[in-house]
Amino acid sequence: MPVKRPNGVIQQSFFIHHIMQVSLQINARWIITVDADDSVLHHHALIIDGDKIIDILPQGEATKYSPLNLVEISNHAVVPGFINAHTHAAMSLLKGLADDLPLDEWLNEHIWPAETELADEHFVKDGTELAIAEMIRSGTTCFNDMYFFIDQTALVVSRAGIRANIGIPIIDFPTRWAKDLDEYISKGLAVRDQFNNNKLITFSFSPHAPYTVSDESFKTLQPIMDELGLSMHIHVHETQSEVDDAIEKQGIKPLARLNNLELLSPDLITVHMTALDDDDIKQLATHSVHVVHCPESNLKLASGFCPVLSLFEAGINVALGTDGSASNNDIDMLGEMRTAALLAKGISGKANSLSAHDVLRMATINGAKTLGLNDQIGSIEIGKQADVFAINLKQIETQPVYDVISTLVYSASRSQISDVWVAGKRLLDNHELTTLDESVLLEKAKQWHGKITPFHHPVNKTGVK
Amino acid sequence: MPVKRPNGVIQQSFFIHHIMQVSLQINARWIITVDADDSVLHHHALIIDGDKIIDILPQGEATKYSPLNLVEISNHAVVPGFINAHTHAAMSLLKGLADDLPLDEWLNEHIWPAETELADEHFVKDGTELAIAEMIRSGTTCFNDMYFFIDQTALVVSRAGIRANIGIPIIDFPTRWAKDLDEYISKGLAVRDQFNNNKLITFSFSPHAPYTVSDESFKTLQPIMDELGLSMHIHVHETQSEVDDAIEKQGIKPLARLNNLELLSPDLITVHMTALDDDDIKQLATHSVHVVHCPESNLKLASGFCPVLSLFEAGINVALGTDGSASNNDIDMLGEMRTAALLAKGISGKANSLSAHDVLRMATINGAKTLGLNDQIGSIEIGKQADVFAINLKQIETQPVYDVISTLVYSASRSQISDVWVAGKRLLDNHELTTLDESVLLEKAKQWHGKITPFHHPVNKTGVK
Repeated sequence: MPVKRPNGVIQQSFFIHHIMQVSLQINARWIITVDADDSVLHHHALIIDGDKIIDILPQGEATKYSPLNLVEISNHAVVPGFINAHTHAAMSLLKGLADDLPLDEWLNEHIWPAETELADEHFVKDGTELAIAEMIRSGTTCFNDMYFFIDQTALVVSRAGIRANIGIPIIDFPTRWAKDLDEYISKGLAVRDQFNNNKLITFSFSPHAPYTVSDESFKTLQPIMDELGLSMHIHVHETQSEVDDAIEKQGIKPLARLNNLELLSPDLITVHMTALDDDDIKQLATHSVHVVHCPESNLKLASGFCPVLSLFEAGINVALGTDGSASNNDIDMLGEMRTAALLAKGISGKANSLSAHDVLRMATINGAKTLGLNDQIGSIEIGKQADVFAINLKQIETQPVYDVISTLVYSASRSQISDVWVAGKRLLDNHELTTLDESVLLEKAKQWHGKITPFHHPVNKTGVK
Repeated sequence: MPVKRPNGVIQQSFFIHHIMQVSLQINARWIITVDADDSVLHHHALIIDGDKIIDILPQGEATKYSPLNLVEISNHAVVPGFINAHTHAAMSLLKGLADDLPLDEWLNEHIWPAETELADEHFVKDGTELAIAEMIRSGTTCFNDMYFFIDQTALVVSRAGIRANIGIPIIDFPTRWAKDLDEYISKGLAVRDQFNNNKLITFSFSPHAPYTVSDESFKTLQPIMDELGLSMHIHVHETQSEVDDAIEKQGIKPLARLNNLELLSPDLITVHMTALDDDDIKQLATHSVHVVHCPESNLKLASGFCPVLSLFEAGINVALGTDGSASNNDIDMLGEMRTAALLAKGISGKANSLSAHDVLRMATINGAKTLGLNDQIGSIEIGKQADVFAINLKQIETQPVYDVISTLVYSASRSQISDVWVAGKRLLDNHELTTLDESVLLEKAKQWHGKITPFHHPVNKTGVK
């Protein structure tokens, strides 16, 4: 109620006290919330203060906020930032190095030799920076990484302002990063301690795969995971031959072995999972294990097909990842959603399986669940972190719009993404990176091109004439 | 040898006479020729005069040409324009209208009712224009279309300056375009006569499919095809159920029926072809029939998988098409190449099948062969038409470059395409359309949105929670 001054004049400053100053207001044509009802809001305002979403309301009612920054994007959809649930970010320097080759030749004759020779702290720093630039430009606000020299990864993530879950690498042979299990663990945990104060960075253990990590090593990790509350991020059942080999050599399937080691739990993030039978799926469901589907990498390396529909039917949480750029060859979650939706239809023979809405959940809220961060990110809801992007749909390629989520998944391209915020900070401002220098990154990529070229596979000539 | 004047001074004008004036010189970082050897030329100049490529030579040797227009694109690859071998261009107004639905429901409850009600000459004009804009912006310089109101299609193609093979529609029931076979033929041929002088437009007969066109109709078309030298463009064996239905109802497979009708020939363009056995493939090879693979449409409608590798092994020419935007939902040949390459690896289980080079041939020279235009288009070679596009690869997403064809297919996006020429005419100039007005197209799309929305399928809710 207005307060009258003694002279009867209404005290103007009183009203000002009711207007709340906030850091940012975004007025958008659509807000795709990815809440429990998949609500799409039209002509709403997203109110952000600091790193949090504090309100979502019709634009006409937003007058109670006084934003320091007002962003008017009347042709745009605002979308929860993508969560890329499986990356090897540094490998972006190797994209296109050795394409169209059998998996063994790709890995043993090109990727691994190049990594052995070149993948040092500089490679990780520059490669990860290049990848983060690509991710920000394509709406990814959080990624779940697995690689070496994670001190560099954390440093670059921290400077770029993106969110990441960084895997502490574990593998049963020496690399340039560490000589043995003790060192893999101690160096990894030291980086974790070092970045303890960065709210945008979390850590997992990332054993490479069941076939490169022994029972003993897994048993060493387990109490540390429990003590520190860490999850585990691992490639499992990537191909049928991985499973067959394990049965032949160890008499047990990798997943069953992890079960025996009591590692199946909601803290386990299993990647690829193309070779799964009904028992495997039952086990995953029983223990609430997360699965990360990487359709483009699985196609490119002919690894098999992750049975996404069966996993969902069993109630398992399935997120989406691109894998590293050497086997994709991009880290574009818009494209990955599209491939996931199309592939599931083709493989199942059902055109109504895995809708645009489904894959959008996989790329956002399901990724957040996978990382145990779904109370903070993965949807646009009051109280959550302001990790969002804006995409301009008023373009030849995306008009008319009948269902904005269909348009986003099936018709839009990453180049239409104009703005990206992570924890309320604008990392892409009208297509310009704010925390990374594109020309510096391109210059570094050029330098690496020279060093990496000797590992390039000569022209993969056509078989089609 | 220089000619000396009587006074001993070298005659300058002599040299000038040896410098040839041409309309256009493009200096590019790479020229991807798609010639018989898949040659990639570095730092070469493409010399164009009028509508033709007249020379390709190292930039340092290009001083013998004096171009009216010099285009210096030192970060770009110049590529033969894509040939989209199967489209229903006008349907771009329907993209995203009814996604994630079973094929029958998609077609019978949404697409066909919308078309019956709305697909008139205005729809075709505006939809085709929108599609051509999308095609030019994504490097397509020629498309093979099948739809109604082809007078409008030809008009829009002619104004836009793109190249097209336009299908004269044939179907055994009346539509808004024609009431019976006679009218389908006569109206179609009248349009052909009308655009006789346009060198960029050719025509085929386009019977919709074996199940909607009778033997009698096919028999009527055949002598006309022979007389006028027309090819035939038709959907065949799109799904297994099409084949099963035909066997049940007519006692014969559609392809065998076309063979009985003596229609299998190098003039037959068969689209989709997901349900093929060894005998079918043998027949196709024997008669040099062309096949158009539409991987994204086949995935989206769960139609099955075209056995591309087996077709190539049998020596059959396979081109690439997007199909209409209602079942894709874009007409982006870069994306379609990528999907074709990834899908073939996934389905065959061989990571070295269908390389980037292979799919680039499918999207260019094989498309040209399909249309009988391979002496004119489909590769960058002296004497061919100047149908090319330029793509800027100096971008975060496409650096470093080890094999430029891999980068093009697996990492690049259509938004990187900066310039497009058809028959030497620049249709896209530094990302700007020169013959179409983008704002007018967007305004028309908005108007159609209002009319088409009643046929929209309500939100395709997620099944994933």
